[in-house]
Amino acid sequence: MSIFETLESEVRSYSRGWPTVFDRAQGSWLYSEDGKAYLDFFAGAGALNYGHNNPVLKKALIDYISRDGVTHALDMFTVAKRDFLETLNDIILKPREMDYKVIFPGPGGANAVEAALKLARKVTGKESVINFTNAFHGMTLGALSVTGNSMKRGGAGVPLVHATPMPYDKYFDGAYPDFLYFERLLEDSGSGLNEPAAVIVETVQGEGGINAARLEWLKGLSDLCRRHDILLILDDVQMGCGRTGPFFSFEEAGIKPDMICLSKSIGGYGLPLAITLIRPDLDVWAPGEHNGTFRGVNPAFVTAAEALRTYWQDDDLEKSTKAKGERVAQAFTELVERYPEANLVSKGRGLARGLEFENGELASKVCAAAFERGLLMETSGPDGEVVKLLPALTTTEDEIEQGLSIIAESVDSVLSR
Amino acid sequence: MSIFETLESEVRSYSRGWPTVFDRAQGSWLYSEDGKAYLDFFAGAGALNYGHNNPVLKKALIDYISRDGVTHALDMFTVAKRDFLETLNDIILKPREMDYKVIFPGPGGANAVEAALKLARKVTGKESVINFTNAFHGMTLGALSVTGNSMKRGGAGVPLVHATPMPYDKYFDGAYPDFLYFERLLEDSGSGLNEPAAVIVETVQGEGGINAARLEWLKGLSDLCRRHDILLILDDVQMGCGRTGPFFSFEEAGIKPDMICLSKSIGGYGLPLAITLIRPDLDVWAPGEHNGTFRGVNPAFVTAAEALRTYWQDDDLEKSTKAKGERVAQAFTELVERYPEANLVSKGRGLARGLEFENGELASKVCAAAFERGLLMETSGPDGEVVKLLPALTTTEDEIEQGLSIIAESVDSVLSR
Amino acid sequence: MSIFETLESEVRSYSRGWPTVFDRAQGSWLYSEDGKAYLDFFAGAGALNYGHNNPVLKKALIDYISRDGVTHALDMFTVAKRDFLETLNDIILKPREMDYKVIFPGPGGANAVEAALKLARKVTGKESVINFTNAFHGMTLGALSVTGNSMKRGGAGVPLVHATPMPYDKYFDGAYPDFLYFERLLEDSGSGLNEPAAVIVETVQGEGGINAARLEWLKGLSDLCRRHDILLILDDVQMGCGRTGPFFSFEEAGIKPDMICLSKSIGGYGLPLAITLIRPDLDVWAPGEHNGTFRGVNPAFVTAAEALRTYWQDDDLEKSTKAKGERVAQAFTELVERYPEANLVSKGRGLARGLEFENGELASKVCAAAFERGLLMETSGPDGEVVKLLPALTTTEDEIEQGLSIIAESVDSVLSR
Amino acid sequence: MSIFETLESEVRSYSRGWPTVFDRAQGSWLYSEDGKAYLDFFAGAGALNYGHNNPVLKKALIDYISRDGVTHALDMFTVAKRDFLETLNDIILKPREMDYKVIFPGPGGANAVEAALKLARKVTGKESVINFTNAFHGMTLGALSVTGNSMKRGGAGVPLVHATPMPYDKYFDGAYPDFLYFERLLEDSGSGLNEPAAVIVETVQGEGGINAARLEWLKGLSDLCRRHDILLILDDVQMGCGRTGPFFSFEEAGIKPDMICLSKSIGGYGLPLAITLIRPDLDVWAPGEHNGTFRGVNPAFVTAAEALRTYWQDDDLEKSTKAKGERVAQAFTELVERYPEANLVSKGRGLARGLEFENGELASKVCAAAFERGLLMETSGPDGEVVKLLPALTTTEDEIEQGLSIIAESVDSVLSR
Repeated sequence: MSIFETLESEVRSYSRGWPTVFDRAQGSWLYSEDGKAYLDFFAGAGALNYGHNNPVLKKALIDYISRDGVTHALDMFTVAKRDFLETLNDIILKPREMDYKVIFPGPGGANAVEAALKLARKVTGKESVINFTNAFHGMTLGALSVTGNSMKRGGAGVPLVHATPMPYDKYFDGAYPDFLYFERLLEDSGSGLNEPAAVIVETVQGEGGINAARLEWLKGLSDLCRRHDILLILDDVQMGCGRTGPFFSFEEAGIKPDMICLSKSIGGYGLPLAITLIRPDLDVWAPGEHNGTFRGVNPAFVTAAEALRTYWQDDDLEKSTKAKGERVAQAFTELVERYPEANLVSKGRGLARGLEFENGELASKVCAAAFERGLLMETSGPDGEVVKLLPALTTTEDEIEQGLSIIAESVDSVLSR
Repeated sequence: MSIFETLESEVRSYSRGWPTVFDRAQGSWLYSEDGKAYLDFFAGAGALNYGHNNPVLKKALIDYISRDGVTHALDMFTVAKRDFLETLNDIILKPREMDYKVIFPGPGGANAVEAALKLARKVTGKESVINFTNAFHGMTLGALSVTGNSMKRGGAGVPLVHATPMPYDKYFDGAYPDFLYFERLLEDSGSGLNEPAAVIVETVQGEGGINAARLEWLKGLSDLCRRHDILLILDDVQMGCGRTGPFFSFEEAGIKPDMICLSKSIGGYGLPLAITLIRPDLDVWAPGEHNGTFRGVNPAFVTAAEALRTYWQDDDLEKSTKAKGERVAQAFTELVERYPEANLVSKGRGLARGLEFENGELASKVCAAAFERGLLMETSGPDGEVVKLLPALTTTEDEIEQGLSIIAESVDSVLSR
Repeated sequence: MSIFETLESEVRSYSRGWPTVFDRAQGSWLYSEDGKAYLDFFAGAGALNYGHNNPVLKKALIDYISRDGVTHALDMFTVAKRDFLETLNDIILKPREMDYKVIFPGPGGANAVEAALKLARKVTGKESVINFTNAFHGMTLGALSVTGNSMKRGGAGVPLVHATPMPYDKYFDGAYPDFLYFERLLEDSGSGLNEPAAVIVETVQGEGGINAARLEWLKGLSDLCRRHDILLILDDVQMGCGRTGPFFSFEEAGIKPDMICLSKSIGGYGLPLAITLIRPDLDVWAPGEHNGTFRGVNPAFVTAAEALRTYWQDDDLEKSTKAKGERVAQAFTELVERYPEANLVSKGRGLARGLEFENGELASKVCAAAFERGLLMETSGPDGEVVKLLPALTTTEDEIEQGLSIIAESVDSVLSR
Repeated sequence: MSIFETLESEVRSYSRGWPTVFDRAQGSWLYSEDGKAYLDFFAGAGALNYGHNNPVLKKALIDYISRDGVTHALDMFTVAKRDFLETLNDIILKPREMDYKVIFPGPGGANAVEAALKLARKVTGKESVINFTNAFHGMTLGALSVTGNSMKRGGAGVPLVHATPMPYDKYFDGAYPDFLYFERLLEDSGSGLNEPAAVIVETVQGEGGINAARLEWLKGLSDLCRRHDILLILDDVQMGCGRTGPFFSFEEAGIKPDMICLSKSIGGYGLPLAITLIRPDLDVWAPGEHNGTFRGVNPAFVTAAEALRTYWQDDDLEKSTKAKGERVAQAFTELVERYPEANLVSKGRGLARGLEFENGELASKVCAAAFERGLLMETSGPDGEVVKLLPALTTTEDEIEQGLSIIAESVDSVLSR
């Protein structure tokens, strides 16, 4: 038995689908210690939008470490943090006319969500939050309470309260008008719905099965929140930083969320970093009312700023992401058509893509077949029925084709049996 | 106005006491961008026990990054993680005859605490947890509910439930027998205390004011938990990794907690890392029942393993930490005696040291005076009345003396006015 | 100022719409101290189905008191309680092939609901309960958490949790299939809906605005509960005891709830009494696990048993209630047709009847006009927009006509202005 | 099997200790259907302070029913309610210079408690309440959360939150200063105690084991509440209406609670009635924000007013209650001294008296022995270790002697074995 099996908790999961020991990584490739190369179409669950060990960021990181730049700095002022804030402001916020303040909530996406929920409740004096079916927002108690997956919820050991799920876009395949139930409950003073402080939403539900909300649904949600004086928290942890094309995944919906959660690829290089953007008038916490040890991961500030400078000064990345995304969608559509009786569904936006099977077993077999062929993909959705692709945005067109071939082969191998 | 003032949330706190922009760091020194050197006696709130940018760890880190070692790996198997697990096992666990499994709960200390609380509740089927007066365990909803500070609790925006505070050691200056109230409530079936799943405790309360529990109190608590079938969660996030001398701060109490939370200095270099050690029979979560993006920060595994190999193969560090701690205590005692009317109190264990003033204003003035003189220290305690020292364990004896001189001068400047 | 105004809390409500001091009562009539007679079409909000001071029950009551029958008996065995239990069994349960055990939960309807909720949670080990929009189940903390009215919920002072509202029948005017949303959430393991212990429902929502669920909707709900192993709690506090015709309001739906809450008219004479009927296998509480002082109101047992004997040995009362209900519906339909532009809606079943206006102001004016003319009625619904009729079932046909005339006049006086 | 065994839930409890069927009652006597007389020293758990079927009240009750006085009246104005309010004001409140408003919260003591808790939370905007070890306040969810007994708490099926137990008077046998722990937690902003809206307390804990708080402890609690701006809710449901001597059990402590809960004997005759007295400035609920069906039990108003007029216009009852209480205490002291090795403890105040045994088994045997001899008593305390006496205050001196003889015999029969 390996040390992983004897010493690590059984709660580990990814290592079960990919039972090999990885050593090195470059771009879209992971290399196991026995030298085998794997094309990584999962990219750290969206934490590696710029690829593994991106050379530009790597250079900046090594330079910074080599010159003894501050590594750990709580929430102190540092040169690296200033550079990150200025770059974020100049390259991302100002050009989009976005007026937000930045909270450093802790190192991970769940911290960004916890900070947003805490602040929304504090500002409004209300406890209740609306989340959506099949949402995923994290594993800490606050974030878990707005997460849908019943297995993960069961891990909490306490009743998860103060959140009510509403149907996400297309939950009833268009059978109901958007927000019919939600708005009716809000308008009916006898509905029994606790008045919500906030709504928390993903534009594309990654863990939930690559469910991409329509832009008009997002716009409708934003309008509804404004009408009813509810704060809109946009959790862009997985779909932000260009995953669907634009830097923020909600840009094309033309909305201005009250709070935005970013993590995963915001650090650029895969080091932990998270930020919560808030409307300036919501900045009501006293100094230290929310704090934490890892809110100043300066090496991550360095790679974060460098990533913004490298990839977001123009719209090249956005365009190529959309184009690659279309290519994946096209390939998936071909599979859908090739197996009409399998009821496959092609899902997603940008380079967040999913291929839905009739059940989790099939999807799992396809992923296993792909792993054998050197491609890393994961399943998602309530029953794991969706093969989920989150390739690095820097994946080349050739690599995309290579991956799509493996996927097609893998699907064939499973469905043609 | 600087970008920090315009763009960063007002919740930032440390930057208020140390209003300068830091750039580089080495060992126990931080350098501001204008070239001024600061002796750092706070060390990332205990995250930098081996000093800033420790050269041994730095070399391992740059080597790893340079050779494109995997940076981000979810919970996949990697060479770096294996090395960390093996090193932890060989150098720390086995020699201490400690039989635990390792959960990677997420990147920060609050994740280690959340995982412990969730698992304790799941295992026992009980919701309630006992925490202690002036405890600090983190800012996420689960961790915050077992934290004492009312200002931080107020940030939650929801009532914090499922936790009941009990008096920490010396809370009544020995007026009550230890655990009198706690055990009476447990034994009285009419007490109204919800039966607790777990007790969560720090051996020395850092944020709470450098309150060091006596070893016999810790032993007594462990015995009480065993008698009443309550899980004992030891939060060693700040006091572990040698802060009080031994690797685990509870070693000298001769206890075996059911769960142990580690973070801060476990990563060695200041990069985010956290682990939760659990008794093997408590390993009941299903795969993925607790997960997260930043549970495989491989550069931190590299520096974590290197730190264990460098500092924990013998007891040199433990001995020097205790010796330096005694020296600080001696200096504090001198101050206590120099100002008999100021009612100063010297507190702490190992290199977790505190000097308590009559109020937060005085302590704050002393820290400000020290900052002017180039020394970084913070206040802690419910009213910020305790000057708190957490110097890197690698701080030289000369640096200790240098810092103590500044402290003495700073106290003089405040109390002699 | 009267003693009511100086000494009684401002929370009093009914006395505001009917500002007179009542002294005596008989049948469907209340008499104020100045001798004016009021036709009572509200009947104690359904607590007086057999009329005020029903002579048959009055005789039994006075006999019992005169002979010093036990008045107060906790949950001791008494002759009066035995008679009540036997009568309930012989006249109500056995003929309907209903196999239930009887809990005496406390004196009021909220106690019956609290006991049902507590037991359902205890039995299933789940905390969550499904309630319906515009439900009313009582004012104690457990009952209030499943009540819809936001003003009443606001009185709690704590967040009301562990309940999720689902749309009641016709909430969307039949535009969508019944239970589509509810069942989708139940079947989707990623929906985020906490698995419910129970559903609590009224067959006709009295406080909610005389919303009468269709029988097939009730049947559908019962089937859904069975499919998903959810306990069905039927709150028949207001609609039971013949209010809609049959003794239990759900009889015609052909369902067998797991628990049934009765109060209000079960005591017969208006004295406090409540019972919770439970499926025998749910009888898991230990002796005393739920208790209370007023669970043995023996004078109420006496009038309760007498009422069952007097009115439920045949189906005369059921038939006449339905006939009178139809007459009221007919009169309401005439009003609906007389004022086509007023968008009146006739609602209800049996002698639970409502006339919905466009807003609460109009409904309130109609009730005020009726009060001036000597008729007592109340408003209900989320905005008080429904004039609500709950006449005693013993109201004569003449009295019904008399009341309907006053209602017509009152509506005329308001809508013709 | 009797109908009680087949049809009534197993949750019934008193009927287990007194397995006979009662029929009639008069004064301090209950008569079983087979004609056996039982001297009742439990008096409806304190609901029958004026004895069973008190002839003065009986006459008023029969007169009222006979003349068709309104029976059920929601919260309407009635002649009977006016008389009750005026009598309460003239005989009880004014002479004591007590300025309170009256809420009719529902028919039972739990309603009085629920109303107080709800209002205290609403007024203060805080959720947390302090209760005491071994408190009993009722079985509805809000009341249960401030009740100590773990078996009863377990019946809730949800975690009981928003309440923290503090040690009741003499919980540590006077070893520590009163309120040391409580006040320390309140004053320490880092204690982790949620700031309480209110404290709820009984002056003598009936269910908790006839624990009589010292008057100076009650005064100290009141002072502490005032110092810390905490509302004091005095639950006088069992100990009020003269049980300990004065009308309110707290009178001799010289305190003015912010809210007072009364039920049980306030109705006089054993019919359900409850009131919550509140400081006038706390009367903030909107009309109907708390409501309920059985808030106007007019026959109970009639007997309530008559009881006040009959027994509280002078201090005869108070004096005789104290004298009889002293007599019981004397008899108990004799038993304590007769069995020095049994460690009996005599407890109580006025006619709330307890004799504590070493365990519940002994106390239970004594009660069984007494029942055989025709005396009704119950056990209380966390393990049922206290024989509890709550005789009617109208019990004659002869009857007291008769009961005490039986008790002595019963104790002898158990302890001399």
